[in-house]
Amino acid sequence: MPVGTQGTVKAVDQEYLRSDIKAQIILSNTYHLYLRPGTEILEKAGGLHKFINWEKPILTDSGGFQIFSLAELRKLKHDGVEFRSHLDGSKHFFTPEKVIGIERSIGSDIMMVLDECTPYPCEYAYARKSKELTSRWAVLNKESFDNSVPLYGHKQFLFGIIQGSVYKDLRESSAKDLVSLDFDGYAIGGLAVGEPAEMMYDLINFTTDFMPENKPRYLMGVGRPENILEAIERGVDMFDCVMPTRNARNAYLFTSEGILSMRNAKHKDDFSVIDPNCSCYTCKNFSRAYLRHLYIAKEILALELGSIHNLHFYLDLVKEARKQIIGGTFKDWKDSILSKITNYQKIN
Amino acid sequence: MPVGTQGTVKAVDQEYLRSDIKAQIILSNTYHLYLRPGTEILEKAGGLHKFINWEKPILTDSGGFQIFSLAELRKLKHDGVEFRSHLDGSKHFFTPEKVIGIERSIGSDIMMVLDECTPYPCEYAYARKSKELTSRWAVLNKESFDNSVPLYGHKQFLFGIIQGSVYKDLRESSAKDLVSLDFDGYAIGGLAVGEPAEMMYDLINFTTDFMPENKPRYLMGVGRPENILEAIERGVDMFDCVMPTRNARNAYLFTSEGILSMRNAKHKDDFSVIDPNCSCYTCKNFSRAYLRHLYIAKEILALELGSIHNLHFYLDLVKEARKQIIGGTFKDWKDSILSKITNYQKIN
Repeated sequence: MPVGTQGTVKAVDQEYLRSDIKAQIILSNTYHLYLRPGTEILEKAGGLHKFINWEKPILTDSGGFQIFSLAELRKLKHDGVEFRSHLDGSKHFFTPEKVIGIERSIGSDIMMVLDECTPYPCEYAYARKSKELTSRWAVLNKESFDNSVPLYGHKQFLFGIIQGSVYKDLRESSAKDLVSLDFDGYAIGGLAVGEPAEMMYDLINFTTDFMPENKPRYLMGVGRPENILEAIERGVDMFDCVMPTRNARNAYLFTSEGILSMRNAKHKDDFSVIDPNCSCYTCKNFSRAYLRHLYIAKEILALELGSIHNLHFYLDLVKEARKQIIGGTFKDWKDSILSKITNYQKIN
Repeated sequence: MPVGTQGTVKAVDQEYLRSDIKAQIILSNTYHLYLRPGTEILEKAGGLHKFINWEKPILTDSGGFQIFSLAELRKLKHDGVEFRSHLDGSKHFFTPEKVIGIERSIGSDIMMVLDECTPYPCEYAYARKSKELTSRWAVLNKESFDNSVPLYGHKQFLFGIIQGSVYKDLRESSAKDLVSLDFDGYAIGGLAVGEPAEMMYDLINFTTDFMPENKPRYLMGVGRPENILEAIERGVDMFDCVMPTRNARNAYLFTSEGILSMRNAKHKDDFSVIDPNCSCYTCKNFSRAYLRHLYIAKEILALELGSIHNLHFYLDLVKEARKQIIGGTFKDWKDSILSKITNYQKIN
């Protein structure tokens, strides 16, 4: 899922998302949209789909992660979390009920529950207490969801978020708590927050065993191309990450042969395309030399073209993964990709 | 002409320029392109058209204006101008011959001569001396043009630039000097540099009398919609201005009823389009409320959508002017537009 935190995938217009990148779903953020433009405007617009003119599915993260990473002076209470806006310092209080209400105003197709995302490292005692809070809130999220209705005539779904930090017993009990509530899908939260990749893979592998096979499994905030392939192998279906768009804004472009640092002087007279295996608008029309010029000259077009390319690359990767799974050849294909992926570590 | 100083119209990709804005020509800048990416890369690319993937005409300003407004430590000499790059302080020397050479490397369809653009106000003695320099350089520009050939197999044209500050006798003599050299077209330079609009209109009116009727007349760096209509009435054919794109980046959008300041709170729940009389991508797809949200949230998409709209507005205006001229109704139409144009002074 391309990330459109504030109701726009940064630097990419909806037409390219639709016709070039062919995104089937985008992610937006409850915390950000609640602060700006606010639910009153979203409701008047007839929901986020109409507001941003995007007819395909939207998933909204609940804002739990943002409250713990962006907001100021937060106070965690039994029934919710008090925080001050990172924009203007104004005071707010989020409860599971409140978040469900905001997500009804947004009208996202997939709503995420309010949870607490633990940092890494995190002591066992805190992780256990936090997991219990997330499980308790999950009940309240589900009740609010069941007791409210969509505002715009289309069905909305609610996903639970499994927490438990790096502790397998907590992950298991979190998963069981949530699965007993019968959500429409399940996310693994609290990973990719600084722990080693091998530890993350091990925890994904462990946790997915407790997740239903017939419901979507979503790994939140992950990640690098190799992280995504490893997680797919361990049974994950859905991902979101700012990496393709953020890296593009920092002049790092993904290719089938590794990452290109577009400010590098070696590209200045390279008139080949970013990736000959890519069919995105950028690769169909422009050279590495032109992209480098745009990045060096700090032109906005660099951010647009780079973001289009990186998103196209990511969606190509997961589309191909799906094809290989269906064809029964995922494992071999993944290994061949991973052998090239060492190149992602060295930047050209 | 949309302005694409560094080989990109800021925040607008070539596909929108082509299919939505329907630009027939864009402007780029010799000074900027010489410094970055440089002529070596442009030549390797096969010229600017190929480098930026833009097959329609390109006009390049010579860089005279930029040397006098941007570059540092410039020293005007008899045969050219020495300056330091505004980017890295490196020393360069531009002569008419050198500029023609750079414009051959760029491969622009319309090349502008190297001139000196006088500031406003400008004392008569300086203006006269400067006009003489520009006329002397015009001869050298023309000689270099006649003694060189296009590098990429397409014809290039050379326009002269009439100077003379606000002094009619100097404007007349500058025009006569240039016309005697038989350029492919003629520009009026050195206006819209701070003088009152009425003085500018009077000087345009005066100067066009000395310009051939059968060759394009180009008023450089102008301007506001009303300036353009007034200049068209006085016989000008071509314009360039950063106003549509720069204003869009500053959240000012042009409409047939006046300028909108998109950060204004009044737009926050206005779900109408920017301009109901506009058929641009932005107006076909998005509301004022969404645009305001994007500007307030400092999203790059605001700059893209705003720039597309403002350029579309400007090109609609001049297309309509052309239609009204052909229909013999320009004067009445212009008056009706001007009566609304007082709105351009007050911002909504």
